[in-house]
Amino acid sequence: MYIVDCDCHNDWHSADVLLPYLEGWWRECYLRGEHTGPRGAFPHGHRAWFHPEDFRRADIKPTCEEEEYTLMRDKHLNPNNIDVAILTGEEALETSTLANPHYAMALAKANNDWMVNEWLPKDERFYGSIIVAPQDPELAAQEIRRLGDHPRLVQVLVSHGSTMPYGDPFYHPIYRACEEVGLPFSIHLGGNGGINTMPFANGSPRYFTEAHALFSQPAQTHLVSMIVNGVFEKFPTLKMVVIECGVSWVPPLLWRLDAEWRALRKEVPWLKHLPSEYCFEHVRFTTQPLEQPSKIEHLWAVLEAMQAKDTLMFASDYPHWDQDEISAIRLPEGWTPNVFGLNALKVYKRLSHLIPAAEAAATANVGAV
Amino acid sequence: MYIVDCDCHNDWHSADVLLPYLEGWWRECYLRGEHTGPRGAFPHGHRAWFHPEDFRRADIKPTCEEEEYTLMRDKHLNPNNIDVAILTGEEALETSTLANPHYAMALAKANNDWMVNEWLPKDERFYGSIIVAPQDPELAAQEIRRLGDHPRLVQVLVSHGSTMPYGDPFYHPIYRACEEVGLPFSIHLGGNGGINTMPFANGSPRYFTEAHALFSQPAQTHLVSMIVNGVFEKFPTLKMVVIECGVSWVPPLLWRLDAEWRALRKEVPWLKHLPSEYCFEHVRFTTQPLEQPSKIEHLWAVLEAMQAKDTLMFASDYPHWDQDEISAIRLPEGWTPNVFGLNALKVYKRLSHLIPAAEAAATANVGAV
Repeated sequence: MYIVDCDCHNDWHSADVLLPYLEGWWRECYLRGEHTGPRGAFPHGHRAWFHPEDFRRADIKPTCEEEEYTLMRDKHLNPNNIDVAILTGEEALETSTLANPHYAMALAKANNDWMVNEWLPKDERFYGSIIVAPQDPELAAQEIRRLGDHPRLVQVLVSHGSTMPYGDPFYHPIYRACEEVGLPFSIHLGGNGGINTMPFANGSPRYFTEAHALFSQPAQTHLVSMIVNGVFEKFPTLKMVVIECGVSWVPPLLWRLDAEWRALRKEVPWLKHLPSEYCFEHVRFTTQPLEQPSKIEHLWAVLEAMQAKDTLMFASDYPHWDQDEISAIRLPEGWTPNVFGLNALKVYKRLSHLIPAAEAAATANVGAV
Repeated sequence: MYIVDCDCHNDWHSADVLLPYLEGWWRECYLRGEHTGPRGAFPHGHRAWFHPEDFRRADIKPTCEEEEYTLMRDKHLNPNNIDVAILTGEEALETSTLANPHYAMALAKANNDWMVNEWLPKDERFYGSIIVAPQDPELAAQEIRRLGDHPRLVQVLVSHGSTMPYGDPFYHPIYRACEEVGLPFSIHLGGNGGINTMPFANGSPRYFTEAHALFSQPAQTHLVSMIVNGVFEKFPTLKMVVIECGVSWVPPLLWRLDAEWRALRKEVPWLKHLPSEYCFEHVRFTTQPLEQPSKIEHLWAVLEAMQAKDTLMFASDYPHWDQDEISAIRLPEGWTPNVFGLNALKVYKRLSHLIPAAEAAATANVGAV
């Protein structure tokens, strides 16, 4: 089985790793300015819902920078036979929560350079994400163009927390830059404090248990917003990836959205197709967390309704608390090559050279059965 | 077939119908105070997402107060063979958007008295809702106790827009009163302006098409909040009804919430059961709008996963733009007697005397087949 892990977090032991990559005033700002904790804490607006047992796996505790990689290799990449790991950073996504967009982008840029210089060379299985702070879309677009032709950077990545839904024309400079460099626009759970709006409908829950159950809501809003505002009409080659926001909410939302469009299309005349058609064509979703009903056929019916054989991609979310075991992911027969490898190799254009290897692995696997 | 319509809107032609029921200063306030439009407009904070073709059916246009009833009778109750119609008001739900809770409750109270005096006597099929403004729970509880033993009032009703999620202890005086009088606590789409919080996760959409697709989000938040805050442990006989908030989002959310509880139950130790068990035991959902995927088996799998044979209840949403045709509601074999009648007669205790008639109709129906 050929495995592409679409969400592998390359954390830092201390945010001080960014110092060599922070330029001029922003370096001073990080060194002398306000922090959220002791030295090494990353400047960001933390969300209000604190995980009672921490969001990192209790059994993965790096004691120095080097172990951030060696533990990942020894506890995840090697034992799980990962062929490609797409690095998604960690706290750098939280730059979206900062009021000062210049400081935010300086930190995101430092993260990107640190990852390119210190992570990609470590392991040939690694590919990277260009993390941007979306609150100043022109600054974000500059960063996308700066790094956009790097052969091992496969996507533009933002937090699913934001100041408004991502279909808003305010964000369109980001999509223009994504189209120019040929990279998908990806959203990942996070960025739910600071300047960003309440990530839950109708006010704040009290407990992390509630918050985590509802963390798919911002992705629901963004998906509807991207489709209905015509982003995929305006940027017809743009792809979108929804990471760590859950999966099985997608069909119920699309059923409803298709019904709205049938009844109200005069309000949004730029949409030429059913909303679900834009979704299946342009949007991909990752497995972690994949819902686990007591009756697997219920999940499979939902997956079939979202054409998940072609729209779902494996993600481990290493090293987070709720990481899915690969062996626990039960899929309909024949879906494995697509969901664990080919769907990602197709949507991430920079990975297309790996398609033959994945197809060969799929064929070998069929032979083995 | 015995049909209970769980959402039948008894609108007014002009809010001036409330004048005889508004007391003292509040009557003056309505007569002399600020309005949202010409005389007859109801004081409320209107939502920001305006339906481009109005939320009322284009073919139902009462020209006077009397036609509010006669059109309902002639266009809906009689042709659709409705046996019981639960009246859910219309703009009175919007009292939740007003800053002044005393004015809000005076208006809600006037609505309730108007409905009891001028709607219930019109038609023996009618049963009513006690509408309350939840922003001052003690005032709301007073109104519940004032009317709670009326034999034809079957539920306490609030908008799904609110200042915070309904599981918050702030609202518990309402549930204490509901338990005392033996009525379910029901939420209905609405109240999404004024003092209430943004009804969508992560900021505002731009178009009604988006908003309407996402209007299930506040219900998601409330359902999680009611369960996780232990409302059904604290008030073990309380029932909750979710009206006009969609249906098929329920199983994906419960799958996720059950997983959170399995992992994080130490955070919420007052929960003794799986969240989904509280839901199936205490919460009922109404059909309108029932999602309509292209493949009906996908919907049926989702309905089975929420035990909808016992948790789903028919609602017409008369006279709104997206009213479901009864003939368009396709259910798994054998579910009709429950979904169209018995489930409602069981959760609405004031209707339990009608169970024998509904069971007789179900038996006759089987005989006919």
